[in-house]
Amino acid sequence: MLLGGVETMSKREPVHCHVVEKAARDLLKERGVTLNAVAQIVFDMQLPYNKDLKMEECIDSVDKVLEKREIQHAILVGIELDKLAEKKQLSEPLQSIVEMDEGLFGVDETIALGSVFGYGSIAVTTFGYLDKQKIGIIKDLDTKQEGSINTFLDDLVCSIAANAASRLAHRLRDKQERLREEEIQRRDHEERIG
Amino acid sequence: MLLGGVETMSKREPVHCHVVEKAARDLLKERGVTLNAVAQIVFDMQLPYNKDLKMEECIDSVDKVLEKREIQHAILVGIELDKLAEKKQLSEPLQSIVEMDEGLFGVDETIALGSVFGYGSIAVTTFGYLDKQKIGIIKDLDTKQEGSINTFLDDLVCSIAANAASRLAHRLRDKQERLREEEIQRRDHEERIG
Amino acid sequence: MLLGGVETMSKREPVHCHVVEKAARDLLKERGVTLNAVAQIVFDMQLPYNKDLKMEECIDSVDKVLEKREIQHAILVGIELDKLAEKKQLSEPLQSIVEMDEGLFGVDETIALGSVFGYGSIAVTTFGYLDKQKIGIIKDLDTKQEGSINTFLDDLVCSIAANAASRLAHRLRDKQERLREEEIQRRDHEERIG
Amino acid sequence: MLLGGVETMSKREPVHCHVVEKAARDLLKERGVTLNAVAQIVFDMQLPYNKDLKMEECIDSVDKVLEKREIQHAILVGIELDKLAEKKQLSEPLQSIVEMDEGLFGVDETIALGSVFGYGSIAVTTFGYLDKQKIGIIKDLDTKQEGSINTFLDDLVCSIAANAASRLAHRLRDKQERLREEEIQRRDHEERIG
Repeated sequence: MLLGGVETMSKREPVHCHVVEKAARDLLKERGVTLNAVAQIVFDMQLPYNKDLKMEECIDSVDKVLEKREIQHAILVGIELDKLAEKKQLSEPLQSIVEMDEGLFGVDETIALGSVFGYGSIAVTTFGYLDKQKIGIIKDLDTKQEGSINTFLDDLVCSIAANAASRLAHRLRDKQERLREEEIQRRDHEERIG
Repeated sequence: MLLGGVETMSKREPVHCHVVEKAARDLLKERGVTLNAVAQIVFDMQLPYNKDLKMEECIDSVDKVLEKREIQHAILVGIELDKLAEKKQLSEPLQSIVEMDEGLFGVDETIALGSVFGYGSIAVTTFGYLDKQKIGIIKDLDTKQEGSINTFLDDLVCSIAANAASRLAHRLRDKQERLREEEIQRRDHEERIG
Repeated sequence: MLLGGVETMSKREPVHCHVVEKAARDLLKERGVTLNAVAQIVFDMQLPYNKDLKMEECIDSVDKVLEKREIQHAILVGIELDKLAEKKQLSEPLQSIVEMDEGLFGVDETIALGSVFGYGSIAVTTFGYLDKQKIGIIKDLDTKQEGSINTFLDDLVCSIAANAASRLAHRLRDKQERLREEEIQRRDHEERIG
Repeated sequence: MLLGGVETMSKREPVHCHVVEKAARDLLKERGVTLNAVAQIVFDMQLPYNKDLKMEECIDSVDKVLEKREIQHAILVGIELDKLAEKKQLSEPLQSIVEMDEGLFGVDETIALGSVFGYGSIAVTTFGYLDKQKIGIIKDLDTKQEGSINTFLDDLVCSIAANAASRLAHRLRDKQERLREEEIQRRDHEERIG
């Protein structure tokens, strides 16, 4: 399986995950979406549930979400469609539908939702909330500038932020449970030695 | 197949849809959820998109959503679990989890989401928004009174309202397109006779 | 709102549903997917549950599924991506991923699933079954001929067939329940006059 | 937060994850579902894609899936409903619907699907396939013995098996990519020293 030269390999082997991940991250950057901007949404969403939350944890959580195959693939497809629409290279009537980002067109949400399910029901409700409220960079993306099209990208950013927020919520619980266990063990220990 | 008496029939035939529908509607009423209260949420959600929206259309839309098998089944299961939890008849640890309506328990949202998908991506995002914002009767249900448990019901109401809102959005578009068609035909007609 | 000429209109008004529907149906035809071929899958899937099933009912059910906005939009996006990949017009690494239809790429299934949820859980399980078993035209599409790419189309056909099958299952039940009701009324009537 | 005695704690603190996990695993055992029986399904599903697959890897994958909160919660709810139905403790018409496991009742699939989405689109299609084909222990559960009800459990087992299979598929790819990388590095190294 691994005998061929680079060219033969590229024909037979699936694209390496590092290539896919780098392409997805580069595309976000190219379209003006920084980890920080997404992490800011995550921070604003999760602060009410965790007063000690730090911006670095949010950045880290967004970063971890971007390591997932499902979200990388969704980014590749969604941004490709946005860019093709900007260059007027989609066939009609798809070109017009994507250009206008019309309300009843749902393939953008569907693609984004596909990677939201992986983070549980909190991620799904957070996605829905962000998609309606359009906070921070999601609002900037939605407020189209002349010529730029972000029909798929704004939903993808909702998805990344929702996943990162849900991930933090689950980890916060894990942390609290570990603390509780240690506390119980400490008290058991005190009782025994008390 | 239809030869037996009532008792034999009840063993062989699936429960008739009228029985299921009546049971689901009765349960909502029993738990204090009126069509009007749900329709009010739908009205508040859709008014920004349709200035001419009338409360009667929202009531009618909620009513139509309740005709669907999927939502009826979800109501039967969800309210059953709420009522069993109120009577402390669930096994532990499920009893405690449902009683507390804890944040990482997602089966309530999952059951409600199951019937949301049927109304397209607008319904999914509206569901997520309502589940976070808890408007109107959803807030009342969530603010638990002593002894009452609505862990599943509040998500079901989000689902019914989201479905009814999405249904109205799709029908508004259908109506606008019919109007546009008539306008085009009128102009074509005027041109021809002009 | 309806004052402008055709060009102004095309900028402001959403694309008319008739245009979208015609485009979706034309694309299926262009890619070699006939209503009959899809209906044959539906027939084979549903015959075990309904001995009286007729091919015409299956064709009609497929036709009704194609009237839905969600499936039309999914068809427009999916076939566009297949055609762009055939013309080598997608960016790398997306071009390679779509060309190879690689196993862990799931955006094709995600887009197709988006319109499956609308037909309930039977549609979801039927979709999963068809996607694994690749019956009839789905197999033909999956067995790639030199140069042709159907990465998205084969999942779309699974989705259309699954939806049409689920639709028939629900309607069969409705029919049985009406028959049962008539039977009950007939017997009630006989008892009264008996 | 951790000051109270056991009783106070149980009122305030969410149920500890270890308690939930143990309860879910105990319930599966109680209902006759062993890790081995589920792993056998996973093995049969994945062998065609991986000739070197070992039964131990499948058992381990099932075990890892059971560590997830979403699946544990689904198991608690689903088996509770099956057991209540066996004891005739559900209200009508839900009691009859669950007893008969009727074809158009989809809440069982919905609850199971909720935890399938977390493992990507392969998991969804595998779930659909298993739900139709009913292999191994799924068949045993579906073939009801007098008095026993597994309406929810058979879908839960499909979900666990589908998740474990999808997990293995993703890990197989990761492994192949690591091998490929090592191979590339080895050749690079040979070239340099060659």
